[in-house]
Amino acid sequence: MRSYHVQYGAGLAGLTVRDHSIPTPGTGEVLVRIRANSLNFRELSILRGQYPLPVKPDVVAVSDGAGEVVATGAGVDRVRLGDRVVGVVFPRWVDGPFGLEVADQLGGSLDGMLTEYAVLGQDAVLRFPDHLTYEEAATLPCAGVTAWNALTGGRGLRAGETVLTLGSGGVSLFAIQFAAILGARVIATTGRAANAERLTALGAEQVIDYLTTPDWFEQVRKLTDGRGVDHVIDVAGTLEQSLRSVAMAGEVAFVGTLAGAPPVDPRLIFTAGAVLRPIALGSRAHFVAMNEVIAAHRARPVIDRVFPFEQAASAYRYYQDARPFGKVVITQSAAA
Amino acid sequence: MRSYHVQYGAGLAGLTVRDHSIPTPGTGEVLVRIRANSLNFRELSILRGQYPLPVKPDVVAVSDGAGEVVATGAGVDRVRLGDRVVGVVFPRWVDGPFGLEVADQLGGSLDGMLTEYAVLGQDAVLRFPDHLTYEEAATLPCAGVTAWNALTGGRGLRAGETVLTLGSGGVSLFAIQFAAILGARVIATTGRAANAERLTALGAEQVIDYLTTPDWFEQVRKLTDGRGVDHVIDVAGTLEQSLRSVAMAGEVAFVGTLAGAPPVDPRLIFTAGAVLRPIALGSRAHFVAMNEVIAAHRARPVIDRVFPFEQAASAYRYYQDARPFGKVVITQSAAA
Amino acid sequence: MRSYHVQYGAGLAGLTVRDHSIPTPGTGEVLVRIRANSLNFRELSILRGQYPLPVKPDVVAVSDGAGEVVATGAGVDRVRLGDRVVGVVFPRWVDGPFGLEVADQLGGSLDGMLTEYAVLGQDAVLRFPDHLTYEEAATLPCAGVTAWNALTGGRGLRAGETVLTLGSGGVSLFAIQFAAILGARVIATTGRAANAERLTALGAEQVIDYLTTPDWFEQVRKLTDGRGVDHVIDVAGTLEQSLRSVAMAGEVAFVGTLAGAPPVDPRLIFTAGAVLRPIALGSRAHFVAMNEVIAAHRARPVIDRVFPFEQAASAYRYYQDARPFGKVVITQSAAA
Amino acid sequence: MRSYHVQYGAGLAGLTVRDHSIPTPGTGEVLVRIRANSLNFRELSILRGQYPLPVKPDVVAVSDGAGEVVATGAGVDRVRLGDRVVGVVFPRWVDGPFGLEVADQLGGSLDGMLTEYAVLGQDAVLRFPDHLTYEEAATLPCAGVTAWNALTGGRGLRAGETVLTLGSGGVSLFAIQFAAILGARVIATTGRAANAERLTALGAEQVIDYLTTPDWFEQVRKLTDGRGVDHVIDVAGTLEQSLRSVAMAGEVAFVGTLAGAPPVDPRLIFTAGAVLRPIALGSRAHFVAMNEVIAAHRARPVIDRVFPFEQAASAYRYYQDARPFGKVVITQSAAA
Repeated sequence: MRSYHVQYGAGLAGLTVRDHSIPTPGTGEVLVRIRANSLNFRELSILRGQYPLPVKPDVVAVSDGAGEVVATGAGVDRVRLGDRVVGVVFPRWVDGPFGLEVADQLGGSLDGMLTEYAVLGQDAVLRFPDHLTYEEAATLPCAGVTAWNALTGGRGLRAGETVLTLGSGGVSLFAIQFAAILGARVIATTGRAANAERLTALGAEQVIDYLTTPDWFEQVRKLTDGRGVDHVIDVAGTLEQSLRSVAMAGEVAFVGTLAGAPPVDPRLIFTAGAVLRPIALGSRAHFVAMNEVIAAHRARPVIDRVFPFEQAASAYRYYQDARPFGKVVITQSAAA
Repeated sequence: MRSYHVQYGAGLAGLTVRDHSIPTPGTGEVLVRIRANSLNFRELSILRGQYPLPVKPDVVAVSDGAGEVVATGAGVDRVRLGDRVVGVVFPRWVDGPFGLEVADQLGGSLDGMLTEYAVLGQDAVLRFPDHLTYEEAATLPCAGVTAWNALTGGRGLRAGETVLTLGSGGVSLFAIQFAAILGARVIATTGRAANAERLTALGAEQVIDYLTTPDWFEQVRKLTDGRGVDHVIDVAGTLEQSLRSVAMAGEVAFVGTLAGAPPVDPRLIFTAGAVLRPIALGSRAHFVAMNEVIAAHRARPVIDRVFPFEQAASAYRYYQDARPFGKVVITQSAAA
Repeated sequence: MRSYHVQYGAGLAGLTVRDHSIPTPGTGEVLVRIRANSLNFRELSILRGQYPLPVKPDVVAVSDGAGEVVATGAGVDRVRLGDRVVGVVFPRWVDGPFGLEVADQLGGSLDGMLTEYAVLGQDAVLRFPDHLTYEEAATLPCAGVTAWNALTGGRGLRAGETVLTLGSGGVSLFAIQFAAILGARVIATTGRAANAERLTALGAEQVIDYLTTPDWFEQVRKLTDGRGVDHVIDVAGTLEQSLRSVAMAGEVAFVGTLAGAPPVDPRLIFTAGAVLRPIALGSRAHFVAMNEVIAAHRARPVIDRVFPFEQAASAYRYYQDARPFGKVVITQSAAA
Repeated sequence: MRSYHVQYGAGLAGLTVRDHSIPTPGTGEVLVRIRANSLNFRELSILRGQYPLPVKPDVVAVSDGAGEVVATGAGVDRVRLGDRVVGVVFPRWVDGPFGLEVADQLGGSLDGMLTEYAVLGQDAVLRFPDHLTYEEAATLPCAGVTAWNALTGGRGLRAGETVLTLGSGGVSLFAIQFAAILGARVIATTGRAANAERLTALGAEQVIDYLTTPDWFEQVRKLTDGRGVDHVIDVAGTLEQSLRSVAMAGEVAFVGTLAGAPPVDPRLIFTAGAVLRPIALGSRAHFVAMNEVIAAHRARPVIDRVFPFEQAASAYRYYQDARPFGKVVITQSAAA
């Protein structure tokens, strides 16, 4: 069987495929025939040598993956042969707050999912909703769970409140879908006018073009009678605009920082009067709750494009350069 | 101007209409031209002498009312002339937990709303969503706020979870509508097969007939793969069935007890493993949050029948005897 | 090595000691040389055939135990050779709400700790505070964690509030100590005047003798200016008195029911206006938090009497008949 | 009667005393004979023209004050003649989150307390614990309530956790006292070695001198086994050091910013993984809860120096220049 490996900081040139024999699951472990993966910003961070957590040398690449349980070790009682499962990125983070003691992660300090077969602890996998394909399920572990935690893990977005999402990345698109299900009103920004209609179709009530409206926080204020939004999902670290957009006693869920995000004045944080909450993905409990909601509402992740397993490097390149609308997926199914 | 007064425990015979001069609002007070009222079980409890909180002798009847601000006293700055407002039943219960120090209530220890004009503190009124008529708004203060508190005031119903409502009373119908908005799945019971379709139209996914299925908790278990529902809104004090229907770590929001509700075995409470939370209406903060949701989703309360002001006694009789589907309203608008 | 086994419902006659070879830990497992155990009401329930959860035939007895890690299997990275550890009664209940999917428990569906050596998953053990002996640590898993969950797992007892404890059982004594550390005021009941001083020494500010004051809830009301206490730890299922003692918006943490606890009128639950929260022990997260507090305050559990391993049956009998003040412990240390 | 008035931005020169006739309380109002006041940083901000909220022209100065109720208007039922009361700085902020709709504040948009008599709404005053003098009570409304909210209003400091306080200002000293009562461990910083002993006497376990240890966050890490503290009370806006001191999933309660606080890198906020929560004082509910704790533990505020009413300007100057340890109080009692 084949696995893709990466070297920390070695760029795309470090992505290599290698042959292994199919491993055998030990006590409490399962063997998963991987069917699909999806890419996240963390994959690029690892290639660029900018990932904030430890990465194992020569690690099997990619944290997101879905597949079928094809063998089980002794003592496995939470999943069964034939179950369709996704990987849980932080297998030890079951519930409650994040901490370094649960920071081991697939595709980082632990081997990842861009492989034909993976052996995982039974607690590192989770059954996914029946109506989803493997390709759709593979989009959930990072982007879906992050969006869910961002909306529900702090003060908790409530029905009737207003949430602001930024751009068309994976986390933002999930956040729009989930917020609409939660009964909230969504204001979305985009830098591509052509995306406005698609954002509206997903559940955004208003879309602001941040290129034609550089001080878009003013527009956010106008759309909320001056109050600001109750919740911001900040995926870029553009904290100043987020803080100017948020209502007092609201929350800026802070999902990630791009290099070069400008420093922020403490006085602005203070006068905004909203909680600033950094988020690193989410727990298994977040994943379980999100799956319930996806199943109940038959929600479907947005996929931009699917690449076959053999063209993983092209998938990486496309993800990096093409500004996709929705997730970039790698599949091992025959059809792809 | 005319007001209806009641005597505690004197039955419908004690409901009398009397003439007064129109009062003048003092500092911090407003004069409201009442346009509509709605009836709740508490109105019957007061006539029957079974209300658990103190009732003022010869009190102006009815806690629920909506109208227009037609005069304001000195220092009024939270509402304006012409505002369309509802009364806040516990004017002192602003936010946080209920307690006897905030237990003064309209139509009980304080004069109520079944009158042509009422003087109220500016904190005892609240603007209501624009898309609602006075008749619709008048259904909110007791039944709407109770349902909202029942769903959100404790552990908080989450999207994807399942909630059980009992029958077709005002609280239950609001609970169905709100739960659907919150992204939850609703199982409803009814004793009238004819109501099933209407409950489904409001948002119930399944309806159980409790007459043909006396042990309906078994049906609830079946519909939830044996787990039970995450949340029960118990409006009758039939705790045994509620406890047998609820999932471990769920909540039974306990909204009221009918006389003759059977005693409950502590072992059943223990093994159910769910929180039992008694609810007395809700705070001003609950009311504000609910109004946001009603406005955002343009939700409309269910009204069974509207009576003119002059036929208030008939409205009381109808509410008591007719098993209405939705709220019984009394109007003072010309059209009624 | 020797282990005590029990048969469900077979009484003390079913407690037998048997020889086994010392087991070897598998992947992710540790071998613990048990040094001490303590007894809880659940041990009697199992002998009496009244335990609410499944019990494995011929199970190794007793859920509470502490010992030393003397061997580790492959992949063990959370504990080390030589660590002094306690068992976690529900090894799968890491954090968040309890549920049947995490209900496996030591000394019930899983083998227990009344043995010379036990093999446990590395997640089923936890290091304990340095200042405690094995005997003291062995009192924590059931009684300590239950008391901690009872005080902190629901609305959360706050400094300055008042808590009521009942009697001198293990959970109640821990609750007194923890409540005092949390800055709360404790009112305790006892049926033995002689215990009053000891309860005061542990942290109770007032002690009520429930034999000389059968309607002791009236005394509780008097001591709280009529308000009632914010928190009751009900260890017996005497809900009526608890509900009459609790303040509106408070909590009755309901830790267990004795057979024959009288049924309770729903109207009393409703008018009390407090949440009724049943508790089954607590999660690993509760245990970790409690250990932090015990370490920071150098708290010491109350032990009534210690029996040698060979006299386990006497320990059971003493626990059942002697109304101990504090925990009954079984030790394997040389000194005992 | 005499009142001190201030002009926004006019410096100490704008502080003038003027004669008025004693006012009469209206409906729902009380007349308070003020006995003591205390100064806070906000007083300086107003003189400097740097206060973030609107200030009424010619406002009566100072938000903190305590006194005796000497007359009551019609409808007053929450306080009585002779009650010893403190002012509630945000009279409309009863409970729940802060917002602009409850931002009216004594000594800012509303007249303040540096006067011989003040008329206040009955909801703008609160009885204080019996064991406190007027001078002590006058220190509570700003500094005490802020410290209480900082510790309990967000994730909630728990017993056994560790909290970091900065310097010897009023908020920090209260925070040390309250954290010790809550069962937490306190690490305090100071720039004056002479203060270390006094900080320890108040409840700090360790004291770090930030002058001799400029990178004091490293010392904080050492004292917490590298984890960092669970809670930081940042009173100066030195966010970088606070973020380097806090544990993942902890909280930086952000109480105020000094001009010139350096901007902060979003990446540092992100990698710290702790919530950043700005705080503007606290609600009436916070005040009530804090009073309960102060009463139960007979805690006493730390007062640095007391000035007579006639020397208010000296008090301002001393507060600004002398780096007091504890609160600066102005008294109207005979003894001073």
